Amino acid sequence: MNKYRITFLPSERIFDAHEGDTILDAAMKAGVYINASCGGNSSCGKCRIKVIQGSVISTRHPKISKADYDKGYRLACRSRPESNLVVEVPIESQIDGSILKDNGRKPLILLVSDLGMLIKQRKADPPFFKLYIELPEPTAEDNISDFERLVRELGRILKKHIFSADLNVLKSMARTFRESIWKITVTLTLCNNGFRIVNVETGKKMLENYAIVLDIGTTTVSGQIIDLTNYGHDICTLAEASDYNGQIRFGDDVISRIMYCRKTGGLANMQKALGDTVNGIISQLVKKSGVRKASISHLIFAGNTTMTHLFFGLDPENIMLAPYTPVTNVYPHAIAKDFGLDLEGHVYVIASPCVSSYVGGDVVAGVVGCGMSRSEKVTLYIDVGTNGEIVLGNKDWLICASCSAGPAFEGGGIQFGMRAETGAIEQLKINPVNYEPMIITIGKAKPKGICGSGLIDGISELLLTGILDQNGKFKRDLDDSRVREGESGFEYVVASKENTQICKDIVLTEVDLANVIRAKAALYAGCKVLVESIGLTFHDIERVIIAGGFGHYIDLEKAQIIGLLPELPLERFIFVGNGSLLGTRLFSFSRRFIDEAQSISKKMTNVELSTSQKFMDEFVAASFLPHTDDKAFPGVLKKLHRYKLLP
Amino acid sequence: MNKYRITFLPSERIFDAHEGDTILDAAMKAGVYINASCGGNSSCGKCRIKVIQGSVISTRHPKISKADYDKGYRLACRSRPESNLVVEVPIESQIDGSILKDNGRKPLILLVSDLGMLIKQRKADPPFFKLYIELPEPTAEDNISDFERLVRELGRILKKHIFSADLNVLKSMARTFRESIWKITVTLTLCNNGFRIVNVETGKKMLENYAIVLDIGTTTVSGQIIDLTNYGHDICTLAEASDYNGQIRFGDDVISRIMYCRKTGGLANMQKALGDTVNGIISQLVKKSGVRKASISHLIFAGNTTMTHLFFGLDPENIMLAPYTPVTNVYPHAIAKDFGLDLEGHVYVIASPCVSSYVGGDVVAGVVGCGMSRSEKVTLYIDVGTNGEIVLGNKDWLICASCSAGPAFEGGGIQFGMRAETGAIEQLKINPVNYEPMIITIGKAKPKGICGSGLIDGISELLLTGILDQNGKFKRDLDDSRVREGESGFEYVVASKENTQICKDIVLTEVDLANVIRAKAALYAGCKVLVESIGLTFHDIERVIIAGGFGHYIDLEKAQIIGLLPELPLERFIFVGNGSLLGTRLFSFSRRFIDEAQSISKKMTNVELSTSQKFMDEFVAASFLPHTDDKAFPGVLKKLHRYKLLP
Repeated sequence: MNKYRITFLPSERIFDAHEGDTILDAAMKAGVYINASCGGNSSCGKCRIKVIQGSVISTRHPKISKADYDKGYRLACRSRPESNLVVEVPIESQIDGSILKDNGRKPLILLVSDLGMLIKQRKADPPFFKLYIELPEPTAEDNISDFERLVRELGRILKKHIFSADLNVLKSMARTFRESIWKITVTLTLCNNGFRIVNVETGKKMLENYAIVLDIGTTTVSGQIIDLTNYGHDICTLAEASDYNGQIRFGDDVISRIMYCRKTGGLANMQKALGDTVNGIISQLVKKSGVRKASISHLIFAGNTTMTHLFFGLDPENIMLAPYTPVTNVYPHAIAKDFGLDLEGHVYVIASPCVSSYVGGDVVAGVVGCGMSRSEKVTLYIDVGTNGEIVLGNKDWLICASCSAGPAFEGGGIQFGMRAETGAIEQLKINPVNYEPMIITIGKAKPKGICGSGLIDGISELLLTGILDQNGKFKRDLDDSRVREGESGFEYVVASKENTQICKDIVLTEVDLANVIRAKAALYAGCKVLVESIGLTFHDIERVIIAGGFGHYIDLEKAQIIGLLPELPLERFIFVGNGSLLGTRLFSFSRRFIDEAQSISKKMTNVELSTSQKFMDEFVAASFLPHTDDKAFPGVLKKLHRYKLLP
Repeated sequence: MNKYRITFLPSERIFDAHEGDTILDAAMKAGVYINASCGGNSSCGKCRIKVIQGSVISTRHPKISKADYDKGYRLACRSRPESNLVVEVPIESQIDGSILKDNGRKPLILLVSDLGMLIKQRKADPPFFKLYIELPEPTAEDNISDFERLVRELGRILKKHIFSADLNVLKSMARTFRESIWKITVTLTLCNNGFRIVNVETGKKMLENYAIVLDIGTTTVSGQIIDLTNYGHDICTLAEASDYNGQIRFGDDVISRIMYCRKTGGLANMQKALGDTVNGIISQLVKKSGVRKASISHLIFAGNTTMTHLFFGLDPENIMLAPYTPVTNVYPHAIAKDFGLDLEGHVYVIASPCVSSYVGGDVVAGVVGCGMSRSEKVTLYIDVGTNGEIVLGNKDWLICASCSAGPAFEGGGIQFGMRAETGAIEQLKINPVNYEPMIITIGKAKPKGICGSGLIDGISELLLTGILDQNGKFKRDLDDSRVREGESGFEYVVASKENTQICKDIVLTEVDLANVIRAKAALYAGCKVLVESIGLTFHDIERVIIAGGFGHYIDLEKAQIIGLLPELPLERFIFVGNGSLLGTRLFSFSRRFIDEAQSISKKMTNVELSTSQKFMDEFVAASFLPHTDDKAFPGVLKKLHRYKLLP
């Protein structure tokens, strides 16, 4: 991908922008403040810039007059570089965010797709694979049964002699064989000491083999459809879709869901609600990808222990009752249709194995997905979902814990919180002079709400600009219309209603801030206790992998500013986005990753935090921005002090 | 069991009767004719005898006057010996059947239960077995999942470490463990390289493990419920039940059933009809045995290839189309409930494997059941069902064939034919002087119809008494009211309507006789072709095992008289009744018999008779009583000649 160097004037900040980035994107990444209230949607018309040198792709927006256009004025959100540029940010829309002085800084973001290298060394070996076979037609001399005829041929090809077939396959076998004039495609899976025949199709269908992979979160269900026949440098994802978990109407967190299951019919309702959500996602994936549903051979999902129990209709009650025993941590392969899923009768479901009641299959999938279980490096894996789960270790040892962080980073408990989807504010910068925000939304749509990464940006900016104090309270003495007393106390107006999709001001309240602080404190405390439980300190951690549905990006520096992440060199961090989904992608790529998941789920040692006094102490200590222990965040404090020196 | 010697006067025929036999039973077995029109029901009052010496258990019947009773007159059907007896058959009800002159002849019948020795050397090892386990309760230090807790304990006991569990079990596991305070009974089955946990019950339930075994015939479905925890010298059968196959309404034979399946919804209707029949039998078995349904762990059935396909809902079409290929000959273990069976969700179905389209699982079960696949002796196994199936061989080799015998011996195509149940005439003797019949019915009920063994008795008696010629036609010149011209031609009145349950005369017609002759000719021809196909003759056969639902008994000598069985020494014959059911009983006794069935189903060589000219020739030659080739039945012919010398 081409890069173009953009020099922002008057600050002379230089940034290498990716081809396709807008100038607004580049400015945000470079830390150059440009006024932008509509999330990059071009409706506010505030992000005017002037192209001094070089050329941009842009059309004239009505908010730019013909005369200004000819002078080189453009909307930053509507302009893309097609050469190196010198760009002037006019006085009305600029102020240089001078917090981060170091020019040419590394990008603090990593995309999931950058992790394609994780699978490069492996051979594709999907758990369900297809073979095209031409069978000899039966004759009076050779009139063995259809199944034996197929097995005889498979035995020749695969040099194995133990085969079984699902009843479902036997039911359609006679017709399929004859309709296809004995030229068929068989779907097989390895099963104990032999192969299981799970589907038979007419003709050549080897190049139509798709998997659906899902991360089933308490709040969000995300899915992808994977082409299992076309591996290049990465796993070939044809489409993505996600939705809120339909169980939310029965409760926000796993405990309230489990409580609901105690009612008559509760478990069945809960299972159906999840099934409906998954069906919606399947339907979107099929539509977006144009894949024939009959070509989907399996569905792999990872979820926390409660979600996995609810998917299968297993009684989750003892997950919430001491001593917190799930029914099982390994799950049988089962037929998707049996769970009300709208897939053909041959489609199997594989669930990622769990470790304990509160360290689930999503974490195991994430650990496999990010490769820490195959690495020498001591790695801390943090999955910021509705519960925060943490894994520490490397290929030789793994310990894990769960801390009830709550769903703040997924938008739960936040007045205008939302998950990372179109219209979510995912990047936010505040002008330290006039407290005006610069926001970028997902999909560059008018803002609807704030997702996890937007919250991290927002709180750190509020702190850096001095709007917020380290207790998470707004300064009461600010004379600015952006900070006001609302219905639930003081709040900061992130976007005014005229610039939002929801015809309401989008605000961040002190209640929201308290929820975020509670979540980040629990995560930080959990990490600290886990690391120290084996005699290490944060500085011994060679790599920190962050997973979670905050948004497409997470600004690690800002995550450190609010004290969510320990203050370690930024190059030690990797953000993998949805780690659980990443793992399920790997499972679809090779069954060896499924075996690896089984094996590590058994060897992971669970540390119970809910009864740990040390965890409680650390939690209280971390309930401050960034932390009550100044020595833990010296760099952040330096930045705060520097900032406070500004006018 | 005690035996009492009965001397019948005036013939001086001596017979050792079993304790419990009536004098009528003993007379029938001894070949002593006593008039009896009501099947042993005591309603006709004709079977008067006079006790000369010894003592009988009897009550006075109204048809015997007080004076006669005091003189020693009794009804034979109502009297049982309690010492050795001398009995006079009065002139009005006696004539000595002097066909079989050799006194003290061996009983020509063998009961299934006499074959208990077949399993004596084997150790019980049912495919589904139970273990009682006391699990340690979970604690904060030991809070592994419920499934892992169970597996850990099972691993200790069974010294195996691969366990899987059905989803169904996982669903109830948490509750069952806690309700039973961690004292549970587990049902296990061996599965590939490990054990599968199929059920978990509260408390000690090791002594409640039952199997349902079924023979699913085209015409009749027969079942037993077996106690798997209580093996003495024999398999412990708690109850038996049988019924017509509900599919009969769609057609009498497999071909018409398969034709029906081509209609829309036909296969589903057919499957449901069979399911309903099986449910009826299960319900009877549960009721008769008093077993808790929840304690039934599995159901094993054997049926011909079409019935097995229809049970599982597999497309049977190619069974009837050349080159006659079934979908499969081995069937997956499946859950009974999935086929609409009214059993708990943990109950598995195991189907006996088949050999080819027309040699089914019933034959394989029969071969295992009668032990021929474990014997050195060259054995001919004849299963007289709706199709006649024949197997020849020993433990080293087995060949088999199917000949379309038709359902005559099961009562099909016979005007008053019925299966072997209460009220069926199963023994019949004809007074050669006045052509009056002496009949015994199953259950000593008033006659309703004639079952297979009654047909064999009847035809041989008609032949011996000269009422019938060797073409199967009634002699036209007999001046007797028993032989008359009825609606469908000439017929013999077996029971007059005043003595029947159905208020109609029960007759044997020439059409009936033609059907029986066709069936016996096909069976005989099939046996001959099979035996000669490997260069043997009947005289090389060391043992002939006869299976089928004719009735409780088959009189082998009479079966030879009509030419159904080859004329070999009687001691070479064994009648095992329902061989298929016998096999399924063994399967429930030890999974090694199931393995044996799998293995022999693969090694049996199928000989196709339907296209064999030799078979057609032999069939035509055998369509005569006993056979067109006099040399094949020298003994029978000698008897016929001797008989014809009688007045």
